[in-house]
Amino acid sequence: MSRTPIWTAIHDALSGEIAAGHYDVGDRLPSEAQLAGRFGVNRHTVRRALAALAEDGVVQSRQGAGVFISARPTEYAIGRRVRFRSNLNAAGRLPGRKRLSNETRQANPAELEALALEEGAKVHVFEGVSLADGQPLALSRSVFPAERFPDLPAILAEEESITLALAQCGVTDYTRASTRITAKLATAAQARHLRLREGAPILRTVSINVDPQGVPVEYGHAWFAGDRVALSVEDQG
Amino acid sequence: MSRTPIWTAIHDALSGEIAAGHYDVGDRLPSEAQLAGRFGVNRHTVRRALAALAEDGVVQSRQGAGVFISARPTEYAIGRRVRFRSNLNAAGRLPGRKRLSNETRQANPAELEALALEEGAKVHVFEGVSLADGQPLALSRSVFPAERFPDLPAILAEEESITLALAQCGVTDYTRASTRITAKLATAAQARHLRLREGAPILRTVSINVDPQGVPVEYGHAWFAGDRVALSVEDQG
Repeated sequence: MSRTPIWTAIHDALSGEIAAGHYDVGDRLPSEAQLAGRFGVNRHTVRRALAALAEDGVVQSRQGAGVFISARPTEYAIGRRVRFRSNLNAAGRLPGRKRLSNETRQANPAELEALALEEGAKVHVFEGVSLADGQPLALSRSVFPAERFPDLPAILAEEESITLALAQCGVTDYTRASTRITAKLATAAQARHLRLREGAPILRTVSINVDPQGVPVEYGHAWFAGDRVALSVEDQG
Repeated sequence: MSRTPIWTAIHDALSGEIAAGHYDVGDRLPSEAQLAGRFGVNRHTVRRALAALAEDGVVQSRQGAGVFISARPTEYAIGRRVRFRSNLNAAGRLPGRKRLSNETRQANPAELEALALEEGAKVHVFEGVSLADGQPLALSRSVFPAERFPDLPAILAEEESITLALAQCGVTDYTRASTRITAKLATAAQARHLRLREGAPILRTVSINVDPQGVPVEYGHAWFAGDRVALSVEDQG
């Protein structure tokens, strides 16, 4: 049996202080030299503890500037019912949405398959930025079958909530049939919309929502700022 | 209504050819100039189509060398029952595991909370690399309550499967209570183990498995190579 290494004790002490609110988001931690002095260890040991805090997502190191308290990631539940507004409210964040584009066009093969449409079918495509407390959380693209929802573009021009817009089209409930999650690096355009640097980590989700009869109503892509969100999957069984 | 842009038609044509097996994994696509000639468009339009294929994860561009067919990501199901071996078999991959380390030590606060242990409790910590067809898929760390499973280290020295090892300790079934998913960039050490470049995208999962009575039996971390895996969450309701 090995003893608990000293860096984990330092990690746990700092972690406890941060959790207890000794620092605010954006505050700088004391320097490596100061922490080494405080705990009576060398700077290598301090660095190990700081690296573990960074891995936890609790702090972020900025080259040459120091180590800063990170914003806590927004918890975003992926389950049978995924609702942007309820998810953000549950995480204690104020939800918002910025519209980017809105078009109706022929579906591509992936969209035809996801929405179970016939060759040549048209789709409404909405792109936007989802906000949490005014900060960009995700870029999103929602694709809907155009023939079934002819009035959706007009409704979504007024109504920010997709759930409420679909309800006005007669879909009073829908559930998440599948979500596929991959990790990517932000492209220049994504970085600009999400206010990240190019190459920052992105969580991409591709999802299908279905009506109570199991018919697909929405095919969605979302590119979440990897530092600002944690997707959670809970057993609902 | 807008017309389908020409680049989406080129994207769809190439995507169809790749799906139909006209190319093998690792093959180079024809050059931008050749594709521009073939489709009778300019290179800007070809680049737009290739960027969309890259975003699909179907091809990968290598600076100066060209555009290559990517390996299809391994589909890894996150649900009520998450089993590494069954998941890989379902994805048509050969599962494997490389052991990295194995220690018994005092639990840190996060481990105490996840495993519902009392202050001062000890845990067994196993680290390893999960393989798919011999290629590194994920780095993993599994943490088990030491008092409940005194023989686990000896069993796991012989038995590669955690499911079978837990069965030998009397846990004949377990289910996934929660999974939390974030996106990170590979550190130097992670890159080395996963044979990635530093800064490549990583999908990190933090999970808790519980026995049929709901008592936590395993607290797990996994760092998946972001280019090689897609986590999927299906509605099982």
